[in-house]
Amino acid sequence: MTTYTPPIKDIQFVLHELLKVTESDVPGYDELDPEFTQAILDEAGKIAANVLHPLNKVGDEEGCRLENGVVRTPKGFKEAFDQVREGGWTGLDCDPEYGGQGLPHLMNTAAGEMFSSANMAFQMYPGLTHGAASAIHVHGSEDQKQTYLPKLYSGEWTGTMNLTEPQCGTDLGLIRTKAEPQDDGSYLITGSKIWISSGEHDMADNIIHLVLAKIPGGPEGVKGISLFVVPKFFVNEDGSLGDRNAVSCGGLEEKMGIHGNATCVMNYDGARGWLVGEMHKGMRAMFTMMNEARLSVALQGYAQGEVAYQNALGFARDRLQGRDVTGTKNPNGPADPIIVHPDVRRNLMDQKVYVEGGRAMVYWGASMIDRSHRLNDDEAEAMISLLIPVLKGFLTDKGFETAVNAQQTLGGSGFTREWGLEQFVRDARIAMIYEGTNGIQSLDLVGRKLGMNGGQTIMAFFEMVKSFIKENEGNAGLKAGYLDPLKEASKDLQAAAMYFMQEGMKNPLNALSGSYDFMHLFGHVTMGLVWAQMAKASMEALEGGASDTEFYETKLATGRYYMARHLPATKLHLARISTGAEPVMALDAANF
Amino acid sequence: MTTYTPPIKDIQFVLHELLKVTESDVPGYDELDPEFTQAILDEAGKIAANVLHPLNKVGDEEGCRLENGVVRTPKGFKEAFDQVREGGWTGLDCDPEYGGQGLPHLMNTAAGEMFSSANMAFQMYPGLTHGAASAIHVHGSEDQKQTYLPKLYSGEWTGTMNLTEPQCGTDLGLIRTKAEPQDDGSYLITGSKIWISSGEHDMADNIIHLVLAKIPGGPEGVKGISLFVVPKFFVNEDGSLGDRNAVSCGGLEEKMGIHGNATCVMNYDGARGWLVGEMHKGMRAMFTMMNEARLSVALQGYAQGEVAYQNALGFARDRLQGRDVTGTKNPNGPADPIIVHPDVRRNLMDQKVYVEGGRAMVYWGASMIDRSHRLNDDEAEAMISLLIPVLKGFLTDKGFETAVNAQQTLGGSGFTREWGLEQFVRDARIAMIYEGTNGIQSLDLVGRKLGMNGGQTIMAFFEMVKSFIKENEGNAGLKAGYLDPLKEASKDLQAAAMYFMQEGMKNPLNALSGSYDFMHLFGHVTMGLVWAQMAKASMEALEGGASDTEFYETKLATGRYYMARHLPATKLHLARISTGAEPVMALDAANF
Repeated sequence: MTTYTPPIKDIQFVLHELLKVTESDVPGYDELDPEFTQAILDEAGKIAANVLHPLNKVGDEEGCRLENGVVRTPKGFKEAFDQVREGGWTGLDCDPEYGGQGLPHLMNTAAGEMFSSANMAFQMYPGLTHGAASAIHVHGSEDQKQTYLPKLYSGEWTGTMNLTEPQCGTDLGLIRTKAEPQDDGSYLITGSKIWISSGEHDMADNIIHLVLAKIPGGPEGVKGISLFVVPKFFVNEDGSLGDRNAVSCGGLEEKMGIHGNATCVMNYDGARGWLVGEMHKGMRAMFTMMNEARLSVALQGYAQGEVAYQNALGFARDRLQGRDVTGTKNPNGPADPIIVHPDVRRNLMDQKVYVEGGRAMVYWGASMIDRSHRLNDDEAEAMISLLIPVLKGFLTDKGFETAVNAQQTLGGSGFTREWGLEQFVRDARIAMIYEGTNGIQSLDLVGRKLGMNGGQTIMAFFEMVKSFIKENEGNAGLKAGYLDPLKEASKDLQAAAMYFMQEGMKNPLNALSGSYDFMHLFGHVTMGLVWAQMAKASMEALEGGASDTEFYETKLATGRYYMARHLPATKLHLARISTGAEPVMALDAANF
Repeated sequence: MTTYTPPIKDIQFVLHELLKVTESDVPGYDELDPEFTQAILDEAGKIAANVLHPLNKVGDEEGCRLENGVVRTPKGFKEAFDQVREGGWTGLDCDPEYGGQGLPHLMNTAAGEMFSSANMAFQMYPGLTHGAASAIHVHGSEDQKQTYLPKLYSGEWTGTMNLTEPQCGTDLGLIRTKAEPQDDGSYLITGSKIWISSGEHDMADNIIHLVLAKIPGGPEGVKGISLFVVPKFFVNEDGSLGDRNAVSCGGLEEKMGIHGNATCVMNYDGARGWLVGEMHKGMRAMFTMMNEARLSVALQGYAQGEVAYQNALGFARDRLQGRDVTGTKNPNGPADPIIVHPDVRRNLMDQKVYVEGGRAMVYWGASMIDRSHRLNDDEAEAMISLLIPVLKGFLTDKGFETAVNAQQTLGGSGFTREWGLEQFVRDARIAMIYEGTNGIQSLDLVGRKLGMNGGQTIMAFFEMVKSFIKENEGNAGLKAGYLDPLKEASKDLQAAAMYFMQEGMKNPLNALSGSYDFMHLFGHVTMGLVWAQMAKASMEALEGGASDTEFYETKLATGRYYMARHLPATKLHLARISTGAEPVMALDAANF
C-alpha cells in the first residue's frame, strides 16, 4: 500500500545549490556535474522505487527464518540483491585499486538514502558490507585487501561487524570472546556474539565477519581488544572458496522491526581468524570506522522520515473529512481533503522540515568525510568527528518522531498494517539504539568531542556559524527570517558549552546530566545553519531568474517554519541543562 | 519477561493525601477510608499482576483469529475474564439499581489503571462494555436498562461502540449506515462499521452493539444521526437469549499493537435494533459519554508508561555496564549497574514524572466526574469538560513517549520481542489515535472548550491555579521549587489563551495553527499544578512526622525534577503559538 518516489530534485538541490559540489577542491568532486549526478540518482532511484520498495512489506511480514543453520531471507531479497550488485551499487565509492568505482562518499550517501527509504532492512546487507570493507581497507594487510575487498566491493560476498556479547554492549571492555594465537599466525576464535546484523543469510557466496576478541594475556578492558577477520568459508590461494569455518548462526532475534534483516546470534567455536591491524588495537580500528557507520545511521533516521512523510502527504491529499474553515475547497465532494486543516498542515510541516534539514546535514557530513579522506584535511576530520554524535542522535530521534507524526496523519489507518506507516515507525526505532544508543552519542559528544583539540573544533563550529551570519546580514529577508533566529540559537549553544566547561570542571555530573539536551541543542543549531544556507541558496536561485519559482519559494517557507517553530527549542534545552545535576541525581537508586 | 507490580502505595497517596477523598462532600466518598480502598486495590492488584499481566505477551503473540464468523481470543483470555467478572470488577462503579456495586468512578479508575497497565488489550473488553452500559444508563429507556444493564454490569455480556465507517472517522456527518423504521417500533440497520474494538469474540454469551446510523429522511450531516442498540442475540422477554441478529464480523484488522483485542469490521445486514434516546440526537448521546471514555484513554497513556517504566527501572538496576564516574559502586562486579549513569537517570526521571503526574491528573479528573454525577455540580462538569481534551491528548502523547524512553533504557534489548518493552510501545501508540485523534482533541479544546460558558471555565482554571499559589506562597520551600515555576508556566498559558482570543477572532487560522501546542501547554500547567499539590501533601506528611520519610522525599525530588526540567516547555509552546498561522499555512497544498 505504501509508495516511494525518489526525491531527486531535492537531492540535486543539496548537491549543487547548497554544497555546490563542482566548485569544491575535493578531488573527484569536479566530475559531479548536475547531468552526471542526475544520471546516477535516476538509476539509484529506479532500483529503490521499482525493486526495493515493493519488497519492504514482504520483508516485514515474512522476516528471516533459520532452518538447519541456514538463514532464509524474505522472498525476492536475493534477486533484488543481484540487481543491486550488478548495477555496481555495492562498490560505488570504493577504492578502484580493488575494483571499486571510486566515486565520492557523498554519492554513495545519496544512493544509500534512496535504498534506505525504500527498504531499510534490505539496505542493511550492503550497508554492513560497506562498513566491513572499509575496516579492512584502512587496517588490513595488503594480502587481506587483495583477498577480501574485490568480492566485498562487487557484492559477491557480504560483511558483518561483531561487537556485542550478552554481557556487554556499550561496555566493550567486558568482552569474553577469546582469540588464541596459532603457530601459523592465525587465531582460533571462541565465543558468542549477539545482535549481528546480516550475520547469516542466503544472498551471497561468502560472509566476511569482523570480530572483536581478546588475545589471552593481553591488557585488561578495552585496551586488550583486537580485531579479526573471520570468513564463513575459507578462501583458497586462487580466490576460490574452501572449507566452512567454525562459525555458525545460533539463533535469530525476534524484533520490533527491520524483520527483513537477519539479526543473528553468532557462535564462534574455534573459528579461524586473522588479526586486522595491530594486536590490542581493535577499538582504535573500530573507531576509525565509526564516523562513516554513524553517519549512515543518521541517514536512516531521516530516510524513514522521508518515506513516511511521502505517504502521510498522499493520504492528506486524498482523504476527505471535514470542511476548510476558511471556505469549502472541494465543493463537489462530500468533504475537503484533510490537508486543508491547519493542524494537519502543522503536522506535515513538522515532518517536512526534519526530512529536508536532515538530508542537508547528512550530505554535508558526507562531504566532510570526503574532504577528510581525499585531502587529508584534519580540520574537516575534526569537524565531522565533533558533529557525528549530533547527527546520529538528533536525526534518529527526529526521524522516529517524524515517522510517528506521519502515522498520526493517517489516524486509525496509521495503526493498521495495511497502510504500512506503522512499519516505518517500527523500523525507524532501531536507529536510535544501534551504533551506540543516542544516550551514548550524547556522552561521546560531551565527554570526548566537546573538549577535542583543546576546544578548537567547537570554537571553529561557532566561528562558522558566526561568519555565515555576518557575511549575509546585509540581506534583510535572510536576516529576519533565518539569521536572527540562528544567532539566538547559537548563543544558547555557546551558553550551554560554557556551562559545561565551567560547571563540568567542578562536577562532571553537571555536564553528564545535560548531555542529551546538549546533543539536541547542538542538533537544532546545526539544522538551523543548514536551513539558513538553503534559504540563501533559494534566494540566489530566485534572484538569478530560476524558472521553478515554486520550488524555491517552498524551500524558503519550509525553512521559515523550522526557524519559527522548531529552532526555539534551544531555549528549553538550555534551561534543562542549566538546572545541572541536582534534579537528575537527587534520588537514591533504591528510591526510584 | 516483563513484570508488573501494582503501584498501590502511589495510588493510596493520590486518593488520600492529594485528593483527600474522605474529606470530600461527594456522596459515597466518605466510605473510601484508607483501609477500604487498600482492600479494593489489593484485590484488583492481584488480578492485574497474577491473572492479566501473564497473558499480556500471549495476547500480543497469538492475537485474535476469525474462523467461520467466530472470533477466537488468545488462550487464557476467557478464563481471565471469568475471574474479572466473578470478582465483581465489571460493575464496580455501576448503578446498584441494575446490579452494579455503586462505588465512585474514582475507584473504577484505580482498578482500571492496574488492569490496563497489566494488559491493555484485555482491559478494552470490559472497558468498552462499561462505556456501552453508561450510554444505555443515561439515554436508554427503562425497558432497555432492565434488559441490558444487569448483564453488562455482571460481565455476562459485553458491549461495543460503532461509530467509524470506511469513509468517515472524525467527520461522522458522512455516516451511511441506514436505520429503517419498522412497524413494531424497531429499526433495520444496514451498513458496515470498521475498527470496532471487541466487536466479536468468544468470551461472553452476548454482545450489545451501540450503533450510530441515519434514519432515511432525517436531517443531513451530524444532525441526522441516531443511536441504536443492536444485540448480537435477541433477548427474550424472560431474559433468555433468542435468535441471532443479522450482525456479523466481516474481518479482523491487522494492527501495530493491542493484538489481544479484536478490532472488527462489523457488517449490519438488516440487523434489528432499537433507538436509544431521541431520534437524530445520537451525537448528543455520544458526547455525554465522551468525558468518561476519553478519560479512560488518558489513563491508558500513563498506565502503559507505568508498566514500561517499572521494567526499565528493573533493567537499569540489574544491567552491569560501565563505572560510576564519581566512584565504583559495585566493586565486586565487572561493572556498575547502569542506574548510576546520569543520562540513564535523566531518562528514568523523564519517565517517572509523567507516570506519577499522569495518575494524579486522571484521578483528579475522575473525582470531577463523580462530583458532576453525584452532586449535579455544573462547575465540576464544566471543568472536566475543559480538561478532557488536555488529559487525553497530553497524557497519551506523554505515555507513548514514556514507553519509548523506557524501551531506550534497555538499549538493544528494548528492540527485541523477548524483553517485551517494544510491546508496550506498540500498544501505547493507539491511545494517541482512538477516541478522537490527539489533533482532534486539540481542536475540541481550542474550538469548543476554551470559549465554553463565555470563557468562565478557563478563567476558573486560572483562578484555581492562582489561589493555590497564593495560599501556599508563605511556604518558602514550596514557593521556590514548585510555586514559582508554576506561576511562570501559568502566565504562559494565559498569554496563549489571550492570543487565541485576540488573534483567533481576527483569523481563526491563528488559533487552529496553535491548537496542538496549546493542548500541550495546558497539559504542562495542569501537571505542574498536581505536582505542586503533591509536593505540598508530601511536605505536610513530613511535617506531620510520617514514618516513611523516603517516600515523601522521593515525591518531592520527583516533583522538583518535573518543575525544573519539563515545565519550562510552556515557553516553547507559547513561542510556537505566537508565530500564528503564517508559517503553518504558507504553502499551497500542491507544493508540500
